[in-house]
Amino acid sequence: MRFLSLAAISLVLPAAALAQDSVPPTPTSVIAAAPAAEWRTIPPADLLVMELAPDAAGRTRQVVIQLLPPPFSQGWIGNIRTLAQAGWWDGTSVYRVVDNWVAQWGAGEGEDPATSAKPLPPDIMAVPESAYITPVERGPEDGRDYVLTGPDRREPITVSRWIDSYAIGAHVAGWPLALDSEGGGTAWPVHCYGAVGVARDMSPDTGTGAELYAVIGHAPRQLDRNIAVVGRVVEGIEHLATLSRGTGEAGVYATEAEHTPILSIRLGDSLPADAQPRFEYLATDGASFAAYLAVKANRRDSFYLQPAGGVDLCNAPVPVRRVEM
Amino acid sequence: MRFLSLAAISLVLPAAALAQDSVPPTPTSVIAAAPAAEWRTIPPADLLVMELAPDAAGRTRQVVIQLLPPPFSQGWIGNIRTLAQAGWWDGTSVYRVVDNWVAQWGAGEGEDPATSAKPLPPDIMAVPESAYITPVERGPEDGRDYVLTGPDRREPITVSRWIDSYAIGAHVAGWPLALDSEGGGTAWPVHCYGAVGVARDMSPDTGTGAELYAVIGHAPRQLDRNIAVVGRVVEGIEHLATLSRGTGEAGVYATEAEHTPILSIRLGDSLPADAQPRFEYLATDGASFAAYLAVKANRRDSFYLQPAGGVDLCNAPVPVRRVEM
Repeated sequence: MRFLSLAAISLVLPAAALAQDSVPPTPTSVIAAAPAAEWRTIPPADLLVMELAPDAAGRTRQVVIQLLPPPFSQGWIGNIRTLAQAGWWDGTSVYRVVDNWVAQWGAGEGEDPATSAKPLPPDIMAVPESAYITPVERGPEDGRDYVLTGPDRREPITVSRWIDSYAIGAHVAGWPLALDSEGGGTAWPVHCYGAVGVARDMSPDTGTGAELYAVIGHAPRQLDRNIAVVGRVVEGIEHLATLSRGTGEAGVYATEAEHTPILSIRLGDSLPADAQPRFEYLATDGASFAAYLAVKANRRDSFYLQPAGGVDLCNAPVPVRRVEM
Repeated sequence: MRFLSLAAISLVLPAAALAQDSVPPTPTSVIAAAPAAEWRTIPPADLLVMELAPDAAGRTRQVVIQLLPPPFSQGWIGNIRTLAQAGWWDGTSVYRVVDNWVAQWGAGEGEDPATSAKPLPPDIMAVPESAYITPVERGPEDGRDYVLTGPDRREPITVSRWIDSYAIGAHVAGWPLALDSEGGGTAWPVHCYGAVGVARDMSPDTGTGAELYAVIGHAPRQLDRNIAVVGRVVEGIEHLATLSRGTGEAGVYATEAEHTPILSIRLGDSLPADAQPRFEYLATDGASFAAYLAVKANRRDSFYLQPAGGVDLCNAPVPVRRVEM
């Protein structure tokens, strides 16, 4: 069995890794050993379920997106909830795919010659550019940083010991986060593989949330703080990443026939109980996640000769798992 | 026109950016303004041309791979030249594709139940693990580091001023490179999007070069120094990145029917003159490449509100362009 196969197996067969107590830990064995108490339920209300038209072979294509929790990007996410509840995306399409960059969907808002803009529902709000960043609260009693996740709720920020090329890497509530390294006391969600963001026109427009994109390549961190991250694909990213690349201007499909129709996008809690997606993420302030990062940064299991000595923020995705009913 | 469109346009229409002298530079405008003297020809002998079977719509699929120059990975690259000259890959297939990881091809060497191993040609050499890294020469007269590219030829290493999460980022002869940050005096090629590497069994096996993979996701830098990087895809990576993901063990296709047949893989200089691929790369020790990195790290053109303040080694691909005959 070749290395690459082993590496991939370690992503899909945690039990296999767990079975070998004597070998050095792998990211998968650490995740598999995490106690139930370190797994957090993702509320179905925070999941967007996108049904694409079946592929050429007739296979269904479902993409599940987790929306960021408060306080991040809530203005855009409010719009996204309104759009999903209105079924606004139903009948729109994935109209633009650029290799190592993004897959983008919606109605095209007139930019795509093959589609025309679609009127937005009422009460879609304009969101200010200031919402790209979030203030950080310093906890005087313990010196830790926090973000306020509700009127009387806060989440601790866990700063990463691993170097980031762009800012201070951190995690909060199951999400990778960047912190201002110049003492600005701000934090912002980051563009990693699978991140979902809000396409926009030129400043001061910040986009409504009607036109969304998912990152399908190397993390384009230069977009951080310049465009709103609203979530991440937790299942089915391959249905976007494998779409043919657009050959028209800016990677927009040259013809309508190339578009991938969107049958529907719904919030998870609006689906029938038996169709509601159930996912959990590994708490990012727990011992298991810290161990996961350490092992990602320094693989010592049998395949690896030379530990990397580091891991970048987007090369250690927060573990998310589907929970079978 | 939306930002994402603008961003993509900037990747395909350098002339447009150049036309606007008054606006801040973009990566594309810097590349477009680079003098001819800073572009280096890639010898056709250093290019592998892979012809995949046409896609479902009958479109041809050509993938062009540039092989690393001396002194990097030359043992494996020697094997790869032997295999290409023998037409060894003709009739083999892309048999494994894992999302955000790799697309892998060859004969499967028996690991894939749907294919059987294929005998290798004679004079395929075993390469030692020591070849994963390359010694660096310090130039006493100028304090710069160099790698020996031939018996009487050396290339200067340009150390990046931008922080890397794994090592010291650098470039040499048009390639991204990592340098030992612990004074070991060694350098090694890195796994960025599009990098091509040699699949292997467990240590001390280092692979022959018959089973290759291309990175189709976020840079898996943990593979650096653990598996041989032999080149990079300079054109056609989308033909690998869009292939359906394997559902069998470790992402190997569950059925033979899912494989993508490889019609042929040839060295560029073995093709008829009019079919030989002509590419150039931007010199990485020149002023234009330094400016390109600086602009990638701090976009100040109209779309960007907040410059990133950094750029990781794999988020600033070395510019490569096709030269029309």
